[in-house]
Amino acid sequence: MEPNAKLLENIRKVEPYVPGEQPQEKVIKLNTNENPYPPAPGVLEALKYLDTDRLRLYPDPASGTLVEALAEYYGVSREQVFVGVGSDDVLSMCFLTFFNSKKPILFPDITYSFYKVWAELYHIPYECPKLDEDFRIRREDYYKENGGIIFPNPNAPTAVYEDLEFIEDILKHNQEVIVIVDEAYIDFAGRSALELLNRYENLIVVQTFSKARSMAGMRIGYAISSPALIKYLDDVKYSFNSYTMNLPSLVCGTEAVKDKVYFGKTTASIIETREWAKKELSSLGFQFPDAKANFIFAAHPDYDAAKLFAALKKENIYVRYWGSERIEQYLRITVGTREEMEALFTFLKSYIR
Amino acid sequence: MEPNAKLLENIRKVEPYVPGEQPQEKVIKLNTNENPYPPAPGVLEALKYLDTDRLRLYPDPASGTLVEALAEYYGVSREQVFVGVGSDDVLSMCFLTFFNSKKPILFPDITYSFYKVWAELYHIPYECPKLDEDFRIRREDYYKENGGIIFPNPNAPTAVYEDLEFIEDILKHNQEVIVIVDEAYIDFAGRSALELLNRYENLIVVQTFSKARSMAGMRIGYAISSPALIKYLDDVKYSFNSYTMNLPSLVCGTEAVKDKVYFGKTTASIIETREWAKKELSSLGFQFPDAKANFIFAAHPDYDAAKLFAALKKENIYVRYWGSERIEQYLRITVGTREEMEALFTFLKSYIR
Repeated sequence: MEPNAKLLENIRKVEPYVPGEQPQEKVIKLNTNENPYPPAPGVLEALKYLDTDRLRLYPDPASGTLVEALAEYYGVSREQVFVGVGSDDVLSMCFLTFFNSKKPILFPDITYSFYKVWAELYHIPYECPKLDEDFRIRREDYYKENGGIIFPNPNAPTAVYEDLEFIEDILKHNQEVIVIVDEAYIDFAGRSALELLNRYENLIVVQTFSKARSMAGMRIGYAISSPALIKYLDDVKYSFNSYTMNLPSLVCGTEAVKDKVYFGKTTASIIETREWAKKELSSLGFQFPDAKANFIFAAHPDYDAAKLFAALKKENIYVRYWGSERIEQYLRITVGTREEMEALFTFLKSYIR
Repeated sequence: MEPNAKLLENIRKVEPYVPGEQPQEKVIKLNTNENPYPPAPGVLEALKYLDTDRLRLYPDPASGTLVEALAEYYGVSREQVFVGVGSDDVLSMCFLTFFNSKKPILFPDITYSFYKVWAELYHIPYECPKLDEDFRIRREDYYKENGGIIFPNPNAPTAVYEDLEFIEDILKHNQEVIVIVDEAYIDFAGRSALELLNRYENLIVVQTFSKARSMAGMRIGYAISSPALIKYLDDVKYSFNSYTMNLPSLVCGTEAVKDKVYFGKTTASIIETREWAKKELSSLGFQFPDAKANFIFAAHPDYDAAKLFAALKKENIYVRYWGSERIEQYLRITVGTREEMEALFTFLKSYIR
C-alpha cells in the first residue's frame, strides 16, 4: 500500500546504490574488493578482552584513540584527521559539507558509482568528463569552472593509478574549490596525495580500513586535510550524529593501525598475487588497464563478459559485472588469495579454449 | 589558518550540537542518560566468540539478523523495521527523507536539541510551539498546517509522558504529513505508539539501544513504521552509505534483543530507583514534572541550578545543565544505581540545609 498522495509529496525519492552481492554460502568471493586476509592479530585480542561493561556508556565522540593512532601513523596532527563509518560515511559528509556551489562538481564518467548517488541525494549539480580510450582521466577536463572535484586514485573500477604530478596539476588548476582524492586503494598502488597536503589547502585525502586493513566489517574510514577543513567536517558530523563510531570500532581500529608489520606483509602478498594474476590473465588473452589496486578490470576480445560472469557464478566464483555503457565487456576481479585465484584460472582455462 | 574566501563560500557552516561531557576519570555519571547496568550477558559472550575473520568482509547491508530479532520482538514484519547507527542516525535519515516540505515542521520549544540542529543542517524550516507552564505539549499547537511533526515521548529533558489518546489526537489532525514519535525512553514510561501503527500510515516510531538496552557504546537505533515508509527510508540510507551497521553491532544487537528477562529486570530496577529518588528529591524541596524516563528534570525554588551544578561537579557528580531560556533553573539528573543516587542525596542533604 502506497501512502496517500499528500504524504508522498514531500518524501525524498532516490535511486539507491546497489551494493555488490553478499552471498551467504561458501563461495570464492572476488566481487567486492575485500581483503583475503583476516585483520591484524591484535584486533582479535582487543575484541576478546573488550570491557563490555563500557558498552553501556556513550563512546568518545571525538574518537580520540583512533584519531591519534592515525595522526601518528601518517605524521600529521590530530586536528587533521576525521573518522567516520567507512569511507562512504566520510565521503558523504564531504559532499554535504563542501559541495554547496551552484556550479557542477566534476568526477569521471567511469568511477565509483556512489558519487552520483550522493550528488543526487543532496541535489548537487554534477558533470562527468569521459575517461579516454585507455580509461585514463584527461586532466584538461578538470581545468574548467566547477563546484568541486572528486576522483579515486587508483580509480575504481578501472584500477588505474595516476602519479603525484598529475594530482598536483589538478590541484593547481582548482585552488578555489575543494578537491577530494579518494584513496581507498592507495596502499596497493604508489605514493599518496598526502604528500601534497602541506602545499594545497583545498585538498582532502580519504582512505579506508575496508581494503588494505582487512576490516570492511568494522566500517571505518577517514579523511586527512588541513585543520580548517577538518573542523568544518567535524561541525557537520556533530550536527548529524555525535557518536558515529562505536566502541568496538574505536578499540579495534586503533589496534589495526599499530601493527605495521602485519599490514606491510599482507599488502605485499596481495600485490604479489595481483602481479602474477595479471600475467595469467594476459596469457589467456584478457586485456586490462595496468592494475594498481587489489582488483583487475579485464575484458576478453572473444568472450562476452555477461556470459562469462554467469558461468563463473555457476561455479560459485563471484566477480563484479555492471553491464553499463562503455564497460559492458568488462569484469572487475578482486585479487584474493593465491589459492582462490588458482581456482579462478583453472576455470578460465577450461572456459577459454 | 582559514581557507581562501572563494573556498569558504561553498562550505556548509553549522552550529554543531554539543553533547554532554564524557569525563574519562572515575565519576558518578548522571549526565547523559546512560543505563547503570551492563548489557545482557549474551552480548559479552557474542563479542568474545565473534569470528574476527569475518571482519575482513562487508557486513550484511540489510542488517538481516538484527532486523529479524526486532521484528519478532515487536510483532511486526521485517519490512517495517529500519536500523541505524544510534537513533540519531535514524532520526537524521528521517529528517532527510521525510521533511522536504516548504511548510515548517513542528517540534516543542523544550525538547531534544538535535531536532533543531538537523533542521538547520538540511535547511528545513521549523517552528517550535511552547510547552505549557507544566512543561506539557499543547496538542492544539499541532493542529495547524505544517511540513511534519516530531516530538519525543517521554519528552526530553522534561521526562513528561503523554498517553496514547494524546498521540492519536495528534495523528488524527495530521494525516497528510509524517509524524515521528521519538520513543528513546518509552521502556521506562508506558504504552508505546507502536500500538497505533496499524491505523496511521503517517506514523514513524523511533527507539534506541542506548537507554533501556544498556548499549550506548554500540550505536544502534531503529524506526518502525509501514513497509512503504520504511522502503523510502531504506532507499535514502542505501544512497548515503550501504553498510552502516558493523559486524559487532549486528551480532551484539541481536543477542541483546533476545534476552527479555534481563531487559525486564534491569528496566524494573531503574524504575524502582527513580520512584524512590523522586520521593527523596521532593522531601528536599525539589520540584519536577512527574518523571517517566530514566532521568528527572528538577529545580529547587531556593537554590540556583548553575551553582548547584558546579557544586555537584566539584564532588565528581555529573548531571546535565543547559542554562537556556525557561529551563535555566533546572538540572537533568539521570537515574543511576541505588548506590550512585545515595551518594547524590548524601551530598544534596548537606548542600540543602
